[in-house]
Amino acid sequence: MASDAPADSVPALPDPVSRARLVDAVRFDRDGLVACIAQQHDTGEVLMMAWMNRTALEETLATGRVTYWSRSRAALWRKGETSGQVQRLIDLRLDCDGDTLLALVDQTGVACHTGRRSCFYRAMRGDALVALTEPEADPAELYGR
Amino acid sequence: MASDAPADSVPALPDPVSRARLVDAVRFDRDGLVACIAQQHDTGEVLMMAWMNRTALEETLATGRVTYWSRSRAALWRKGETSGQVQRLIDLRLDCDGDTLLALVDQTGVACHTGRRSCFYRAMRGDALVALTEPEADPAELYGR
Repeated sequence: MASDAPADSVPALPDPVSRARLVDAVRFDRDGLVACIAQQHDTGEVLMMAWMNRTALEETLATGRVTYWSRSRAALWRKGETSGQVQRLIDLRLDCDGDTLLALVDQTGVACHTGRRSCFYRAMRGDALVALTEPEADPAELYGR
Repeated sequence: MASDAPADSVPALPDPVSRARLVDAVRFDRDGLVACIAQQHDTGEVLMMAWMNRTALEETLATGRVTYWSRSRAALWRKGETSGQVQRLIDLRLDCDGDTLLALVDQTGVACHTGRRSCFYRAMRGDALVALTEPEADPAELYGR
């Protein structure tokens, strides 16, 4: 199962000291969060944007599996824990002012809870807001509902 | 001058009604802002992430020139107005829950105030946080300092 994949994709951060150095460079906001964009490392597709707190970021770096902070559930959100649609971390980039992360990932299956590859699937066409892509997976199956 | 380029790149949103329909689908946060990721439309490079309020979004859609809201200056930030490094809007995508935008843009020159193409240029290599790219432009020239 993909969620048991080893964290062999993050050779750059083997030790706690290096990981702490990166975490310390992040400027978390007043809620203790930092925005993280997930991009498929080889295709360049922007998959989603979500939030990390310090613990989520540390866990992401330590395990090589991307973990967010769910603001709606107020809990760690180990991406793919329920759905199996995990994000393996390839590299983590920090922006110029330290308040946004770009995670280059290898996305298993789909990133979006609607079953679409990317969350950014809506756009205006003519005078209507339309879905540009169709679901590739059935959310009911992904989430066992 | 690039900042005088016509807004001929946004054929999908010719009228105020269509633009309002998109703006109304956005879930602005408690500060009246929405996160917007800028991605170079043809290369897939993630350039930056910044914020828009309703006015910035409306102006972006009406002019085809990307305009953000500067939280530090508490003012509209017409990208490239000072530096000439404008972002022409190619398409605007809204994510599944409506709280993040993905702007596909054509970036003139560099997106980052450091003179680098992308703001996401820092990463851990070994035990050091390093710059992965060098400036392509001199910030002193871009900003006339």
